[in-house]
Amino acid sequence: MAKDRRGQRQEERYREMSVAEFFAKNKELAGFANPVRALYQTIRELVENALDATDTHEILPQIYVSIREVESYTGDDGKTRRRYQVTVEDNGIGVPPTVMADAFGRVLFSSKYVIRQTRGMYGLGVKAAVLYGQMTAGKPVEVISSTVSSEYVYMKKLYIDTKRNEPRIVEEGQWRKRGQWHGTRVTIVLEGEWSRARSKILEYIKRTAVIAPYAEILFEAPDGAIYYFPRETIKMPPPPKEAKPHPHGVDLEQMKMILQTTSSKTLEDMLVSEFQSVGRITARSFLEHAGIDPGTNPRDLLKKENQATLTRLVDSMKSYTKFRAPRSDYLSPIGEELIRIGLRRMFRPEWVDAVTRSPRAYQGHPFIVEAGIAYGGEVQAREEPLLLRYANKIPLLYEEREDVAYKVVSSINWRIYNVDFPAPLVVLIHIASTKVPYKGVGKESISDVPEIEAEMRHAIQEVARRLKTYLSRKKREEEARKKIITIAKYIPEVARSLVILSKPPDKWSPPRPEEERMITESLIRLVARNIEVPELPGDGGRSPEEIVRSVIEETRVE
Amino acid sequence: MAKDRRGQRQEERYREMSVAEFFAKNKELAGFANPVRALYQTIRELVENALDATDTHEILPQIYVSIREVESYTGDDGKTRRRYQVTVEDNGIGVPPTVMADAFGRVLFSSKYVIRQTRGMYGLGVKAAVLYGQMTAGKPVEVISSTVSSEYVYMKKLYIDTKRNEPRIVEEGQWRKRGQWHGTRVTIVLEGEWSRARSKILEYIKRTAVIAPYAEILFEAPDGAIYYFPRETIKMPPPPKEAKPHPHGVDLEQMKMILQTTSSKTLEDMLVSEFQSVGRITARSFLEHAGIDPGTNPRDLLKKENQATLTRLVDSMKSYTKFRAPRSDYLSPIGEELIRIGLRRMFRPEWVDAVTRSPRAYQGHPFIVEAGIAYGGEVQAREEPLLLRYANKIPLLYEEREDVAYKVVSSINWRIYNVDFPAPLVVLIHIASTKVPYKGVGKESISDVPEIEAEMRHAIQEVARRLKTYLSRKKREEEARKKIITIAKYIPEVARSLVILSKPPDKWSPPRPEEERMITESLIRLVARNIEVPELPGDGGRSPEEIVRSVIEETRVE
Repeated sequence: MAKDRRGQRQEERYREMSVAEFFAKNKELAGFANPVRALYQTIRELVENALDATDTHEILPQIYVSIREVESYTGDDGKTRRRYQVTVEDNGIGVPPTVMADAFGRVLFSSKYVIRQTRGMYGLGVKAAVLYGQMTAGKPVEVISSTVSSEYVYMKKLYIDTKRNEPRIVEEGQWRKRGQWHGTRVTIVLEGEWSRARSKILEYIKRTAVIAPYAEILFEAPDGAIYYFPRETIKMPPPPKEAKPHPHGVDLEQMKMILQTTSSKTLEDMLVSEFQSVGRITARSFLEHAGIDPGTNPRDLLKKENQATLTRLVDSMKSYTKFRAPRSDYLSPIGEELIRIGLRRMFRPEWVDAVTRSPRAYQGHPFIVEAGIAYGGEVQAREEPLLLRYANKIPLLYEEREDVAYKVVSSINWRIYNVDFPAPLVVLIHIASTKVPYKGVGKESISDVPEIEAEMRHAIQEVARRLKTYLSRKKREEEARKKIITIAKYIPEVARSLVILSKPPDKWSPPRPEEERMITESLIRLVARNIEVPELPGDGGRSPEEIVRSVIEETRVE
Repeated sequence: MAKDRRGQRQEERYREMSVAEFFAKNKELAGFANPVRALYQTIRELVENALDATDTHEILPQIYVSIREVESYTGDDGKTRRRYQVTVEDNGIGVPPTVMADAFGRVLFSSKYVIRQTRGMYGLGVKAAVLYGQMTAGKPVEVISSTVSSEYVYMKKLYIDTKRNEPRIVEEGQWRKRGQWHGTRVTIVLEGEWSRARSKILEYIKRTAVIAPYAEILFEAPDGAIYYFPRETIKMPPPPKEAKPHPHGVDLEQMKMILQTTSSKTLEDMLVSEFQSVGRITARSFLEHAGIDPGTNPRDLLKKENQATLTRLVDSMKSYTKFRAPRSDYLSPIGEELIRIGLRRMFRPEWVDAVTRSPRAYQGHPFIVEAGIAYGGEVQAREEPLLLRYANKIPLLYEEREDVAYKVVSSINWRIYNVDFPAPLVVLIHIASTKVPYKGVGKESISDVPEIEAEMRHAIQEVARRLKTYLSRKKREEEARKKIITIAKYIPEVARSLVILSKPPDKWSPPRPEEERMITESLIRLVARNIEVPELPGDGGRSPEEIVRSVIEETRVE
């Protein structure tokens, strides 16, 4: 055994750690690795909560974000450490006063522990920000909130007791509402580094605006700059809805929980009432397939002697092919139109298109993949596509190379689609799911789930094929253009000659501009009629006449 | 507010989740994303615990690993799901019976929550494996253990109660020891996929053997194959020791904890007794620098009116430059010799070397970076270096591209070191620290900490420079060789002629082999004396004589 320097034995000392202390000690796991990431992550978590409190409940989001520097300290090592006050306010449904303290002061306390597509998932993010704040600035979080139906506004200032993982309120108050305000306003003070976090935070807010053009966002930066993203549309995606578990996603633990808590008296009833996508007929034929009596009392399966039956029930459920697919009508994709609006607003491309795929499922979780492509125009040419990743409407900015979306995009042979790099190509990928398989609690990259990978590939390929059509027509147009040029560039010349020749020499006078213009027009129509130009869809499509006209314009410049 | 399909309002339902339920629901966060990863991760967690229980306590590790298929089920979907029984046994210090149930049945209960270099860090891994087992196979974990000083062996079978995060023992027993056995044997049954996890698991065990050549490892695979890694040396690195926190790493939360629990009566005493690298003189000059009275009672700083002083204390501590660096003599690097042994055994290269850098620190955590390079020989040529990553002696196999080590290795311009790809190049990187900044609880990749990145770069460059010396000498040798060839290949011919010519024609007789050999030898020495061949270090170095001799050998074969 190990001995310390005085030759005594080292004992292993065991102890329990609260989950709050765990995430305080390992703050990098939740995305709070350093003052740069921490400032970014705090903004993210608060903005995501704000959006969940609004669009998930059919409220058009109105979000105010501010970062103010409140303190700076230059140490003996010459480095300057800065503290910032971050405030995010929304017009959402508000947090009821009875749960306010826990919602902000207890790690793993949340309203997101149901089967529903929300940005938040872990019940962790905002608490990790509160913890980081109290560790680096020592100030409590301040929460002000009012629910839609309440007549009061409530305020609480609190710390998280890391030993016990519970809120410790240091100040609280309430007052009667004057107007109709409802929503939540959270203020956290923390150490940060705005100068280095700036570009990521602006990018984050910009990309949020791309995907939620129905939101109004106002951001006040520490340097006084104000960034305003007005509402571009009042069309919102349908809100997500809460679902029951799907039989394909169930494991033994969950099944035991359901068997314990169900009020159904038979297995057949239980399947119908506790699961989605299971009707009475399916329930009966499934139980027959599994060789289990439909009349069995659910509690009986919890008995030790029935363990083999319980295992068979779950094994059969996971693999039974005749259950309907998981409900995807409860999901809330962005939609092709909003993706196109967003990409156009952000990049002003020459061509844009998007696709929302049909729903699929992995391990019992429904998901929908959407893809958008923007090409040309003001898009900068790069050596590889610019990839915009989104999950449940959250922009993902870090750990790109570990994301399955990156894997898919970089494995695509773009030459097939007539794209040669460097190329002005933007690819947007969005996955909406009741369970996004993030790689870490910091929610920055998505795992290689085969079903998701396949869908992402199909989605990109589908839009890329349309891009190919556009690009090859564009190419054909260019070839046609070249042919036209030889003819078209003489049109003005020919027109002038015709004007002159068309008059008898005695009646000669200098050709008038209208005459010339008229003949030119006739010639353009004549040439255009005789030349085949492929029709281009979208912004890039031009009629043969327009092409001829533009060639004349260009050659005239010469 | 959101309404459900019958037009009623949806309420947000808040609830608390235990940390056990959290990691059961989000099993991919701990590396249990699917049956392939889960089998690999289970082996990892158990082997790492086994090594922590042995070499950390100066016991030469003897580790037995077995995976057996115990069940398979082909579902309605045609897929076959398999369950495996995984057993890992070590000869370590054992787990005391009083903490056995919690150590395997309570998430975030551990002996690793101290400042010490261990493989385990989070108190999570083995419990995540237990959870995965009970979710997918429904069987309890079985633990058999005996401490060094105990006269009994204890056995417990238990589940984790996910609602309460506590162990639920279903069977237990104890018996008197016959021999001197001490250690721990853990058995978990889980769903897995050996066929696809096989190569990663074998690679993991192989790489573990590379870095711990003092361990004996026996692995029985499900297909009956036995992999045996014998002990190559009984030299072990010095064991890590537990340290106190360093002042540069402290945050406000930790400081409050220390102020609450210290038995010191003054701040000065507290600094000396509760922190490492702080002597009395440093403590005093630091407090003077911070403008805080050294006689202050630590408890007083917890009062609300002293919050500004407390913040100043921590700010000053983080940035004060005159504290000694964090203690690194408590760390346990592998050492240059063991790295060379390991790389030779695994790759049989033409050239190998390694370096252990001096200790450095980030955010108050000491760390040591080590690097090794193997080149040529049986190493396969590749388009980029084969990278072996280790952290606290754990091989890291997944998420390579997100690891700071990959970032460093791929950013190095290898041409500078005379390496042109494809090249037979292996780079090993090891970081030993009391706190490895992993990106996720699955412990697969290391964050971009600037201090670590810089050290990794320096370590690789240091060994790469030696490789460069070797390679350029090798190149010069080859050039010299070419020069020698023209001379050397005539030596046998010349020797024979000389033997003949050296005798008077009347005394002529056929030259005897000894005569010929003698003259050849003289000529070799003569040629070798007149030719400059760069001296090569290590295995590749050959004397001019050897070179001449080998040329003769080769030309003779012609």
